[in-house]
Amino acid sequence: MSKDFSKGAAWIRGDIVPIHEAKIGVTDWALTHSDVTYDVVPVWNRAFFRLGDYLDRFEASMTACHMDVGMDRAAIESALHDMVAGSGLDAAYVAMVAARGVPIIPGSRDPRDCANHFYAWCVPYVHVVKPEIAEAGVAVMLPDTVRRIPEDSVNPLVKNYHWGDFTQGLFAAKAAGFETVLLPDHAGNVTEGPGFNVFALKGNRVITPERGVLHGITRRTVLELAEAQGFSVEERTLPVAELMEADEVFLSSSGGGVIPVARINDRQFSNGAAGAQALRLRQAYWALMQDSRYLTKVKSAV
Amino acid sequence: MSKDFSKGAAWIRGDIVPIHEAKIGVTDWALTHSDVTYDVVPVWNRAFFRLGDYLDRFEASMTACHMDVGMDRAAIESALHDMVAGSGLDAAYVAMVAARGVPIIPGSRDPRDCANHFYAWCVPYVHVVKPEIAEAGVAVMLPDTVRRIPEDSVNPLVKNYHWGDFTQGLFAAKAAGFETVLLPDHAGNVTEGPGFNVFALKGNRVITPERGVLHGITRRTVLELAEAQGFSVEERTLPVAELMEADEVFLSSSGGGVIPVARINDRQFSNGAAGAQALRLRQAYWALMQDSRYLTKVKSAV
Ligand SMILES: Cc1ncc(COP(=O)(O)O)c(C=O)c1O
Ligand SMILES: Cc1ncc(COP(=O)(O)O)c(C=O)c1O
Repeated sequence: MSKDFSKGAAWIRGDIVPIHEAKIGVTDWALTHSDVTYDVVPVWNRAFFRLGDYLDRFEASMTACHMDVGMDRAAIESALHDMVAGSGLDAAYVAMVAARGVPIIPGSRDPRDCANHFYAWCVPYVHVVKPEIAEAGVAVMLPDTVRRIPEDSVNPLVKNYHWGDFTQGLFAAKAAGFETVLLPDHAGNVTEGPGFNVFALKGNRVITPERGVLHGITRRTVLELAEAQGFSVEERTLPVAELMEADEVFLSSSGGGVIPVARINDRQFSNGAAGAQALRLRQAYWALMQDSRYLTKVKSAV
Repeated sequence: MSKDFSKGAAWIRGDIVPIHEAKIGVTDWALTHSDVTYDVVPVWNRAFFRLGDYLDRFEASMTACHMDVGMDRAAIESALHDMVAGSGLDAAYVAMVAARGVPIIPGSRDPRDCANHFYAWCVPYVHVVKPEIAEAGVAVMLPDTVRRIPEDSVNPLVKNYHWGDFTQGLFAAKAAGFETVLLPDHAGNVTEGPGFNVFALKGNRVITPERGVLHGITRRTVLELAEAQGFSVEERTLPVAELMEADEVFLSSSGGGVIPVARINDRQFSNGAAGAQALRLRQAYWALMQDSRYLTKVKSAV
């Protein structure tokens, strides 16, 4: 094989191709209606982390979207193995995607008429915040002009590409010198950001939003780790005002684990540095990424 | 030329290709963040309708999205002419798209680092509601479980592919035997549907929502026609309850003009048929589509 997979690989209709060759049609409803659901599982040291949990979430998302891609779980899993093995990547960001497709009946506007399809792609491991910035504690903007798309408009539990609110927030954040953005909902509670969940740590308690957010797999891992470290964990509505009163704040993402927050708007946390507890959870997360109980070795393609 | 353009054509990086060959990369943020804006101008009898108005809106959308596709208005316009002429279509749905692209700096999460790009495609003229159904009056569902994405989450004035709310609404509508769906906002006012604006006609007045909706070019045409026909027109908040009390209701779209509504949920309008005034506006719209004052002939490619 002389193909260049250094920038990543994709699985499309059974073929493994270099990432830049992986394309979808400009009339696919995945694009024209953002009618698509996806999931992202990390690979570290040639092993998937919590693969079963990510696949569970992906299957639930496809069901919620009334999508049938004509592949069962075993077929999807083996596509991921073949692709990651073929890519030669040791640490990867692995996306699996279910797309609405185009109507079998030309001109139809009925989503039930579309031929749904699956594809997947992987690239070298992605950090939503660069590790050196994460370790120093990240500066986050929480704007009051942009609000997270509400759950009765687009269900955030179904992982989706509706990032218009995040994109608008990111432009505002970057213009004001912040690294990333965290969005409030329409009732003044905090939700999530582009690629991550958020946590407030106050005394012995770790609090994270329950509604209006994706239930991140890393969020789950963090809640488990925090409990194991003796924190009491609370999944519930988190008002912005309460977040701002926290001892420490941190983010969680499959793209980088636990990310300490040093500042939100004008408010500094842990004296404008990464919090000690957040750093401890960050370390615990990286340790778990090497824990065989959570790992599925990437199988070589035949 | 032996290429088959019967299903449509696309303009991509200066080439005119058959529609099924027009593709974008699976990692383009246009797809993975629905970070994309577009517009759609109708072509009828080999002429663009109100082309300048559609181009104005498209340019305003690109500015709002901080996108620079590296092509000025003249270049975009000539791409559309070349493509439609090349397609050989007499009546077409012509989409122009500005996509975020991918970061020039690999691994960047900053939208400012992306190489934006333009492409366009056209297919045979699309009716958002089939003409025979439109003329009989369409049955529309107005659900109370799904609400339109609010304007402080995603700006509806910037034409966008964030259709998750519409898609969810469409599945509910189709399951209940309705043709299409119309979404309320979070305050109980009516907004718009997948591809159309909505109007209530009551006595001498024609009312259409002002906020939380795309300002359709067809909406503008309808307001002009209604005024010319002696109606007083009102662009303002339209409560669902008031819509339900209308004498007639109709939809407007570049994909089909004026579409009379015979029923919303259990409420019938004009005895469950297309309203007389709506049909009159529909005819006036089709007449205008042939009015040279609004037309730009498609120029043959050199
Ligand atoms: C909107 C959103 N919230 C939260 C997360 C974090 O989820 P996970 O921990 O499963 O990566 C993501 C991940 O991409 C996301 O896109
Ligand atoms: C959400 C939405 N509203 C309204 C419209 C109608 O706009 P226009 O009359 O410009 O086609 C469209 C057109 O596609 C649309 O997508």
